[in-house]
Amino acid sequence: MEDSTVTCPISEKEAKELIREKKFSELRGILLRMYPADIAEFFEQLDRELCPILYRILPKELAAEVFVEMDPDFQQILISAFSDYELRQMLDELYLDDTVDLIEEMPANVVSRILKNSSPEDRKTINELLQYPDDSAGSIMTTEYVSLKQDMTVDAAFELIRRVAIDKETIYNCYVTDANRKLIGIITAKTLMISPRDTKIADIMEHNVISVRTLTDKEEVAILFSKYSFLALPVVDNENRMVGIITVDDAIDVMHDEAEEDFAKMAAITPSETTYLKTSVFSIYKARIPWLMILMISATFTGIIISSFEAALSACIALNAFIPMLMDTGGNSGSQASVTVIRGLSLGEISFSDIMRVVWKEARVAILCSVSLMALTYLKIYLLDYLLLHSLTADEALIVPLVVCFTLGVTVIAAKLIGCTLPILAKKIGFDPAVMASPFITTIVDAVSLICYFAIAASMIPGLA
Amino acid sequence: MEDSTVTCPISEKEAKELIREKKFSELRGILLRMYPADIAEFFEQLDRELCPILYRILPKELAAEVFVEMDPDFQQILISAFSDYELRQMLDELYLDDTVDLIEEMPANVVSRILKNSSPEDRKTINELLQYPDDSAGSIMTTEYVSLKQDMTVDAAFELIRRVAIDKETIYNCYVTDANRKLIGIITAKTLMISPRDTKIADIMEHNVISVRTLTDKEEVAILFSKYSFLALPVVDNENRMVGIITVDDAIDVMHDEAEEDFAKMAAITPSETTYLKTSVFSIYKARIPWLMILMISATFTGIIISSFEAALSACIALNAFIPMLMDTGGNSGSQASVTVIRGLSLGEISFSDIMRVVWKEARVAILCSVSLMALTYLKIYLLDYLLLHSLTADEALIVPLVVCFTLGVTVIAAKLIGCTLPILAKKIGFDPAVMASPFITTIVDAVSLICYFAIAASMIPGLA
Repeated sequence: MEDSTVTCPISEKEAKELIREKKFSELRGILLRMYPADIAEFFEQLDRELCPILYRILPKELAAEVFVEMDPDFQQILISAFSDYELRQMLDELYLDDTVDLIEEMPANVVSRILKNSSPEDRKTINELLQYPDDSAGSIMTTEYVSLKQDMTVDAAFELIRRVAIDKETIYNCYVTDANRKLIGIITAKTLMISPRDTKIADIMEHNVISVRTLTDKEEVAILFSKYSFLALPVVDNENRMVGIITVDDAIDVMHDEAEEDFAKMAAITPSETTYLKTSVFSIYKARIPWLMILMISATFTGIIISSFEAALSACIALNAFIPMLMDTGGNSGSQASVTVIRGLSLGEISFSDIMRVVWKEARVAILCSVSLMALTYLKIYLLDYLLLHSLTADEALIVPLVVCFTLGVTVIAAKLIGCTLPILAKKIGFDPAVMASPFITTIVDAVSLICYFAIAASMIPGLA
Repeated sequence: MEDSTVTCPISEKEAKELIREKKFSELRGILLRMYPADIAEFFEQLDRELCPILYRILPKELAAEVFVEMDPDFQQILISAFSDYELRQMLDELYLDDTVDLIEEMPANVVSRILKNSSPEDRKTINELLQYPDDSAGSIMTTEYVSLKQDMTVDAAFELIRRVAIDKETIYNCYVTDANRKLIGIITAKTLMISPRDTKIADIMEHNVISVRTLTDKEEVAILFSKYSFLALPVVDNENRMVGIITVDDAIDVMHDEAEEDFAKMAAITPSETTYLKTSVFSIYKARIPWLMILMISATFTGIIISSFEAALSACIALNAFIPMLMDTGGNSGSQASVTVIRGLSLGEISFSDIMRVVWKEARVAILCSVSLMALTYLKIYLLDYLLLHSLTADEALIVPLVVCFTLGVTVIAAKLIGCTLPILAKKIGFDPAVMASPFITTIVDAVSLICYFAIAASMIPGLA
């Protein structure tokens, strides 16, 4: 970030200098003034051998926070440099959801070292968390939340919070459960702070709790966070027993990942989790080439359509010049509709039951757009191609603009309707709507517009059919 | 949202029934069990005349929360139904940043009523907040934060927080300022809660504060939130004096809006703030048609290029069938690069200084992609078009595949390089990179690929030039 307000207080060269001179306490002083995410970034710019040395001069709590922020390959370097004792210390500091994320990224031998060095209790929870599917609320939750009882007083609640705070991801939302661990209420630290000390939790807790299930889609979780401005959301099992919480920072990560995935898919790229500059050339190639190949092969149909009308094209070669414009305008019209609908689906604003409303809306938009574009095209062909550039003969000028305009009108309407229905249908039958987006729709629209073009030309231009 | 865990406990019909029977306390009981965002959604589905009636049965604090969640046109209906007294009461409950958002959406006469009914002090702050540009941190901040002094004890801090909590957007991050209102530290409610009561704030506050300026781009603010997992971020003026805070829910809105804007622009749509199903057909038309027209006109160049090679095309009509494939593959290759780079720019992962790294990376990816695609195309033309479909003569089969493959290779490389550099250059000279995205790049790449195609054909096919 060029204009960031955050600057790194030390350069790589200075750090190396301090390490060479063994001025570790000075270095430690500098690192202590930095945020974990910045320290992680700084470490990743250094030589890989320096990383473990620098890591060890951090106090252990900060060290764990830095560790969480690092890329998996650096995490692996660090773990291989750790003694079992160091690894245990670090795992002790990590929240369990971060440990689970780590395990998911590491190779098998590292995973077994991590599990070996976790307490039996943690190991049990980790194994449970690992069971949840990748896209579920369970996969992003943590089990470290504050649980209160309804007959506690505010004072007792504070006492408990103070005791457990250090190990909890958040203490600002506390969850009230009954003897069977069922979630019966929620209370914020703010309410606790402004309530008299002898008040019973039952009297001040919020009873209408919005919760999600462990298998709720994490995209839906993110939608709830942005709709209700939550700081945390409880996760319950099928019997409404409290199993964990999801905090807002994890929800932000989900929103971010989902949006970036949609961007990638719409540009016909297999989504990746690493940032562009950190991704290797070969990984980028692998994420892009299958789509380019599939789309190129599918463009073959377009070629076959053109080939089959070769005779017509030789008879009226002027028709040729309008093919790119027809295809591009169709493609653009279609992706306007599809991108709008895909995002609406992703954000939960549009569902399958809205399909007729969407089609009716797009149909009217399409008619307005196609009339405007037809008028503009007619003028453009007549003025520019005929009068100015003379690329049409007088005979052609009578009929070609009409053929092009009719085709354009049909193409725009077809493109908008295909663009808005295909993603909804794709989602309904369990496909990813974003994958069906612009590129595929473009291919279909291309074929439709060419077939219309030649059919209309054949029926309007004598001797062409 | 079809699979949401939240369901509305009352239907429109039931609500009307209860209103007709004047069972307001029953209705109130039902509404009290709902969340503000859900009540707002429910109100918006009712007849417009019912809205003020229902609104008035809510307790005033909840009423204000519901008001904030409603669409501007419903807010306007409510304000016109309010007496001055009711309006004052409601404004009293709103946070100032919400009042400012409201003022920005309302017509002039409503704005003057709002300002008339605000306290002189609030009016002053509102006017200051209204000065900040739309895309600045100042425009999304609120002035209602908890400010502590460094010589306070933890006990005194709690005393103060309890007193002011009700009017503050968050009490979980507190800001320590000196006598000149300069920001010198930050302390979380968690630290306060786990510290002994007689500790001085100065001894436990965090000194390394990340803050933004009032004019910092709000996109950059959102990046800081997602990088550091903040719940709130302080905003300071040029002298480092504390002027406000931004809370995580507002940062989430910014992330959401910026992503949706980028989606819209990449699909050649003027971004809008309302959701699709709520936007009128004419508004959708207006957001889409200018771009369709601009892109259609720009596709004219492609047409002109084809026209000017009409002679060559008549001489070797087989060349025609490959134009769509070349154009589509070029377009797809270009938008893969451009969308990746545009998102990298938006998220602050790529800046102008990275341009050479990006170009070097894309160049290598482009070479890998173009070699793979050339091989596949050669095979496809030879096997499918020549051996299977006989759309090429034996003479043509010797030379046409080579012409197409060379052009394809050049096009893919050109498309990737144009796609990755154009957005970075656009941002550098102050244009919006997303507007320069896929559609424009497609137009440029189309022209480049056609010129290459005909130039390569002319040099390789005897008698074509």
